[in-house]
Amino acid sequence: MTVAVAMDHVDAAEEVSEFTLANGLHLVVIPDRRAPVVTQMIWYKVGAADEPPGASGIAHFLEHLMFKGTDEIPPGQFSKIVARNGGDDNAFTNHDVTAYFQRVAKDRLPMVMAMEADRMANLRLTPEDVAIERDVILEERRSRVDNDPGSILQEQMMAALYSNHPYGVPIIGWEHEIKDLNRDDALAFYKRFYAPNNAILIVAGDVEPEEAKTLAEGAFGKIPPSSSLDGRTRPSEPDHAAPVRVTLEDARAGRTTVQRYYLAPSYSSAKPGEAEALDLLMRIAASGSVSRIYKRLVVEQKKAASAGGWYSDSGLDSGRLGFYAIAADGVSAEEIDKAIEEVTTELRDSGVTQAELDRARKSYIAEFVDTQDSQSRMARHYGWKLSMGMSIEDVQAWPDRLRQVTLQDIKNVAQKYLVEKNSVTGYLLPIPEYTSSIGDKPAPVPQAGKS
Amino acid sequence: MTVAVAMDHVDAAEEVSEFTLANGLHLVVIPDRRAPVVTQMIWYKVGAADEPPGASGIAHFLEHLMFKGTDEIPPGQFSKIVARNGGDDNAFTNHDVTAYFQRVAKDRLPMVMAMEADRMANLRLTPEDVAIERDVILEERRSRVDNDPGSILQEQMMAALYSNHPYGVPIIGWEHEIKDLNRDDALAFYKRFYAPNNAILIVAGDVEPEEAKTLAEGAFGKIPPSSSLDGRTRPSEPDHAAPVRVTLEDARAGRTTVQRYYLAPSYSSAKPGEAEALDLLMRIAASGSVSRIYKRLVVEQKKAASAGGWYSDSGLDSGRLGFYAIAADGVSAEEIDKAIEEVTTELRDSGVTQAELDRARKSYIAEFVDTQDSQSRMARHYGWKLSMGMSIEDVQAWPDRLRQVTLQDIKNVAQKYLVEKNSVTGYLLPIPEYTSSIGDKPAPVPQAGKS
Repeated sequence: MTVAVAMDHVDAAEEVSEFTLANGLHLVVIPDRRAPVVTQMIWYKVGAADEPPGASGIAHFLEHLMFKGTDEIPPGQFSKIVARNGGDDNAFTNHDVTAYFQRVAKDRLPMVMAMEADRMANLRLTPEDVAIERDVILEERRSRVDNDPGSILQEQMMAALYSNHPYGVPIIGWEHEIKDLNRDDALAFYKRFYAPNNAILIVAGDVEPEEAKTLAEGAFGKIPPSSSLDGRTRPSEPDHAAPVRVTLEDARAGRTTVQRYYLAPSYSSAKPGEAEALDLLMRIAASGSVSRIYKRLVVEQKKAASAGGWYSDSGLDSGRLGFYAIAADGVSAEEIDKAIEEVTTELRDSGVTQAELDRARKSYIAEFVDTQDSQSRMARHYGWKLSMGMSIEDVQAWPDRLRQVTLQDIKNVAQKYLVEKNSVTGYLLPIPEYTSSIGDKPAPVPQAGKS
Repeated sequence: MTVAVAMDHVDAAEEVSEFTLANGLHLVVIPDRRAPVVTQMIWYKVGAADEPPGASGIAHFLEHLMFKGTDEIPPGQFSKIVARNGGDDNAFTNHDVTAYFQRVAKDRLPMVMAMEADRMANLRLTPEDVAIERDVILEERRSRVDNDPGSILQEQMMAALYSNHPYGVPIIGWEHEIKDLNRDDALAFYKRFYAPNNAILIVAGDVEPEEAKTLAEGAFGKIPPSSSLDGRTRPSEPDHAAPVRVTLEDARAGRTTVQRYYLAPSYSSAKPGEAEALDLLMRIAASGSVSRIYKRLVVEQKKAASAGGWYSDSGLDSGRLGFYAIAADGVSAEEIDKAIEEVTTELRDSGVTQAELDRARKSYIAEFVDTQDSQSRMARHYGWKLSMGMSIEDVQAWPDRLRQVTLQDIKNVAQKYLVEKNSVTGYLLPIPEYTSSIGDKPAPVPQAGKS
């Protein structure tokens, strides 16, 4: 039940199978026989960016409500039943997908499949369920966003980065819109998007593909497909003309921190090869203590206590590049801002070195080996990529595509995407915020005759 | 056929009449017998903020297309017929309203009424009309926005000021969305919003109210009301947490200019009395050479060559306060920014003086007298206010409400709305914009072994 955006990169050497049931459900089976456990994940191709305008938060709200009940499962019992059977379960909502997963002993797979199929079609919501869960989510928003200046600033930066595309609307929703969400909104969203032909079912673990298919047909096969899936047309982002800076002064902020986001394509929206080059660029530029930004700002210039960055590569319509640095004592946000700009200028002007490229590629391969060891990460990786429209072949060919990236490719994407006018820079400053003085001061005596 | 946002403030002592026809058309008659001319304006309660997401510009596009033709009026002949009859005509689109008007000799009123009624119900569009007009609008956008750094910056500032409400989308539309607008979009928007029960017909001039009513019934009475008007629910703006700064560097910019916008209520969305107080506050703060900002920045500090501001009071859901200053030679945008902040701090801390308040009120009364002399301004004033849901009585009581504003009221709204976190500040800098160097430099020799 978390709001998640990060993802991992993995390859897969083992045999992954896929089937499409008659009702459109896409089944993917990832064998993993090291232990008698299975991971089931169901991915609905719907997220916060598919919400009707003004109803922000409904995708995440519905994700919470999916744990309420059906005719078969009493309210609030879903996770308890999984736990009583020795498993665990969770869910998350993103701008583009909503996913539910359970990890159980292999003999419990039929049970969790039946439960997941049941709530795909037969969700029952009482007005009380809805009212209680809305309060839970408002509290979640308060604790995660409103009590955390870093999250507040991130929300404002995203709103500035995406002025037209709904990625600018927070996944959890704007507080004033969450307050107005109701049972009808949730059920309308559920009926529109929750259907076998809008879902991918991942089964990873100790199970034969044909057995998983037979089980899925038994559990999900009777659910009719939806005829109301009307595509996912979101407004796209216009060209940006000018860089934006957002300044949050907050007494709760620990240290002066500067973040910069750039609009960039994602794996789904990029031209061939560009996402792979961006992946390597940002690994070299901003990942770890050998990265460009860390070496320049922390080690050499001693302007920052820490520095790094990332490539958010998983959106259906757009991705983002990000840099951040936490200022050293006595260093201003403006100095950090300039130092980040110098790092990006260097990348645009001179690209990266062969040694940096070789090291970055190697570290990805190491991660890929790690990921293959994790059943849940494999399930998550395939679920995410396939939800974004990729094929199993696309997923498996990724390491080869990574190997083809050249120094010139990296310099090209640096020059194309590390462009200031496509950036939003956030300053988080640990000093008291200005507050309106209404009510704090005695009413003044009206002044006469002075101008 | 212009995109307009400004409005005037007037009072009306004369007898204004209103009628509602059986099909819901709201008719308002404003007598003016100084010359044998009449002004007809029809106001549709629909604007750019009512557009479907992703179809920005369709309201303004449809406004253009309304000049194409019907079964009665050959394509492109509407304005020519008005002109051949000695009149003139025009139209404009706003975020909240779309209005069409003609000024003609009084004996031509039946003719223009019939023409306006005809195109309310019987618009005919060929694919060629639509394709040609889309190119006209793209050219309009290029010349008005894309060739004018001030307009580019304003567009980016509005997008930052309204991150959730559609006021952040430009009235003319985002270029990439205008390119995709088509005949079906235009006709769907037309059928949804153009109907007698979504319109206000203003007739100002040398006409008897009953005569105008009879004419309107004859011309518009046969048009059936729409049953598909489904309210105007737009997403509202969340609380802002942090001030935003947008910097546009453009070689075409004349001089360094700083603008600051604040979110504030409009006459439609304000609590009683607040809009009137904001009106007076901004007149005192920023209108003319005796205003606070002009006196401080231009006369006393000599930091600015010019300075001023405004209150955009006419939105259905929200208004804006604005300040601007053009820097004197050698003065930086940051200095101007600080100087503007000092002016607003002074207003929050100390309010305004009685002499300033008296002078501002007096200048409004002078404007009101001026406006009453203009038939078209009266028609425009009533049309706008009534389209925003006000009554004729509300409009006429405005001067009295203005007279009740106190010094404390003004200080209260200054403290409530001149709040930095609700602001967006734009810097327009006349220096070359950073451009990506792709293609501008020879390809480098890949470097090896350096990190």
